[in-house]
This record gives sequence, structure tokens and C-alpha cells, in this order.
Amino acid sequence: MRISELSRRSGAPVSTLKYYLREGLVHEGDRLSGNQTDYDESHVQRVRLVRALLETGGLSIAAAKRVLTTLDAEDSSIAHTFAAAQHAMTDGRAHGDVSETSRARVAALADAQGWRTSPDNPGFGVAARVLDDFSAIGFEPSDSYLGAYASAADQIARADLSALIGRESPELTAELMVVGTVVGDALIAGLRRLAHQEATAELFPTSDAASPHTTQRKDLP
Amino acid sequence: MRISELSRRSGAPVSTLKYYLREGLVHEGDRLSGNQTDYDESHVQRVRLVRALLETGGLSIAAAKRVLTTLDAEDSSIAHTFAAAQHAMTDGRAHGDVSETSRARVAALADAQGWRTSPDNPGFGVAARVLDDFSAIGFEPSDSYLGAYASAADQIARADLSALIGRESPELTAELMVVGTVVGDALIAGLRRLAHQEATAELFPTSDAASPHTTQRKDLP
Repeated sequence: MRISELSRRSGAPVSTLKYYLREGLVHEGDRLSGNQTDYDESHVQRVRLVRALLETGGLSIAAAKRVLTTLDAEDSSIAHTFAAAQHAMTDGRAHGDVSETSRARVAALADAQGWRTSPDNPGFGVAARVLDDFSAIGFEPSDSYLGAYASAADQIARADLSALIGRESPELTAELMVVGTVVGDALIAGLRRLAHQEATAELFPTSDAASPHTTQRKDLP
Repeated sequence: MRISELSRRSGAPVSTLKYYLREGLVHEGDRLSGNQTDYDESHVQRVRLVRALLETGGLSIAAAKRVLTTLDAEDSSIAHTFAAAQHAMTDGRAHGDVSETSRARVAALADAQGWRTSPDNPGFGVAARVLDDFSAIGFEPSDSYLGAYASAADQIARADLSALIGRESPELTAELMVVGTVVGDALIAGLRRLAHQEATAELFPTSDAASPHTTQRKDLP
């Protein structure tokens, strides 16, 4: 297919496609006569993957490139690809030092869940940084607060892995792992916002948050 | 206190503090004689809040300003402040249209959880965008997959609200709500990465992910 068709199929403007090609995020097509280039289904799939990483996941071009390089490596194990996606997502977040106290508390939380983790898992720094932020505003989270987060994390991680198991080919598995790692954060973040509205309505019944979606619909003529 | 002391107490360099002051993210101190300015505890607290929003939360200056304006408004209700923090966090994410199919599936998911939500809750767009991304790579999430995410979101939203209830003053409550909304996403994201490592080790026992943190420590002399 021509680049115009690739644009239509993938939803990315031609100028964006040229940018992805130039940056090496998408593999070159077959050169035909003159300045014509032929693209196929593998290009459509790849462009969609790149868009998910950059737009929903908010990855930088450099971070997306690192993830894709790992994904493309022939000898990449499931665990390696996972780790690469995790590290890429953590770029730009949790810069600077975190306190030893917070790091130790996250490690204790992981141990309490029975999680086998390696010390270089970027999750330690990301979570510890949040505890430092809480501490800076004078909020000391209780064990039950952190336990609720940890058990929620355990639940969604199991759902993520179960979804991976069901994929047909190693390529599709690796792709879902990368996309799932990156956009799964957005999925839980989005649903958390919806759940906050319900929890606010329950706890502050007089507040203006209590204007239910369903009731509004029913009220329509 | 002088600006150097404010820097030490808040952990932000003096140049960063001047930037925050110029941008109106932090209120001015009291002008003393000459070009001396006096800062107090309220400044320390505010600088820490601003850093949490910008650095851990990854908000833009403009988004942080909008959140702080709502936080500072005298007549701001809990629900209003919550909504402002949610909208600010959603800036730069989930741009562009999402499909009606994905939006409807998220609405059905919220209904199944019994959540009362309003149609302008930014969570709908954020979550629907993820479903579109999954669809683009050929992954159609099962009801049990999405259900696991929704019940995890419900669990952490309840923990968030319980933590708010325990705060002493309305100011502290509002502050925690804002910080919690923004950095809570990072907390679940960080813990999810740790949980992924455990789930990977369980499901792919031969993979190199199975090098437990605790065992490594024990192995040390």
C-alpha cells in the first residue's frame, strides 16, 4: 500500500508517518520504481503500536525507541521485554533521590505481599517517591492504606499476565506486554477517577458530586 | 526565614523557588527592609506541594496553576477541588477522539460497579482511550480483565477517601486530595511494576525474573 493508505489505516497523518520513519520507530517499506514505497500490514500494526506508546503512554521518542529495540530483539525473553517497558515508563518520573525510609517501607510492603522482586525494579523508586511526597505534606499513610494499594496492584498484575497467556504468538504476547505496561497505568488511572466520584458521593452525600450519570439519563424526556 | 532557609527546608534550589514565585505558584513573602523578604511555614508547605505536583505528578506549570487556584478558592467544595485535580491530571493525556464503542464499554463497566459518575468525568476518556489502543493491536480485553481493573480502582478510591476523612483541617484535606489524586497514580503504577515481576516469576518460572530480592540479600556474606 502507499503511504496515504497507511495513513488512513493507522490513523496517523502522513507527516507523522514520515517522522516515525525518519526516527527509526517504524521500519522502512519496500522501494519500488521512482520514489514510490510499498507498505504492508506489519507497518499498520507498528504505527498503531508507536502511537499507543507515544500518545496514550506519553513516552518520549527516545524511550519508545528503547522499548521497540527490546521488542524487536530476537532473543528477548518475556522478562527482559517487561523490564525494558518498565524502565522506559519510569524515565522522567521519580528523578532525584528518595529517602531510605520510604524505600524500606515499599520493600516491606512488597515482602508482605510475598512478591519476589529484584532491587533494580523501577517500581521501588516510583512508589517510594510518592511516600516522600506524602510525607512532605504531613500525610503518613497507614498500613491499611498502603495494603489496599498493594493488593489492588497484585490483582491487576495477575489480570495482565492472564491476558498475556491467552495470546497466540510470541510476537503478539510481547506487543501486548509492552502496550499493557505503558497504557495499563492510564487504564487504572482513568477508572480510579470514576471510582473517586462514587466514593466522594458516598462519603459527602450533600456535595455536588452526587449527580449520578444514570439518574441524569433517566431524567431526560 | 530567608530564601536560603526556605530552600533548605523545602529541598528546592533557590533558582527554582524564584521561578515558582515568578509564576505565581507560591505566594510572595513579606518584604522587609532593602531587598530582604521573609518566608514562613506556609511557604515551606506550599513549595513541597508544588514540587509533588510538578515532579512526581508530572503536571505542566499551567495545569499546576489551575489546581492551586481551585485549592486556594475559599468556597471550593471537596467535590470541586477533586474535579479540578482530576481535570488537571488529564491534560496532555487522552487527546483526540475515542471511539463510541470503547466509551460505552467503560460506561457499562462503571455501571456494573454501581458507580455514580457524571458524563464529564475525565476518567471516561482516559480509560476509553486505552481500550482503543488495545483494539488497535488486536487485543480485546475480556470482562474479567476489565472487572479486575475496576474492582482494583474501587478498592484504592475507597482507601483514598478514608485517608481524607482522617485529616484535621479542611486545608489539609484539600491538599491531600490534590496530592493524592496526582501522585496516587504513580503509587499504583510503581506497585504494579513490582507485582508484575512476581506474576511473571510465577507464570514463567524459568525466566530470569525469578531472582528474588530477599534471596539475593540472604546470599550476601
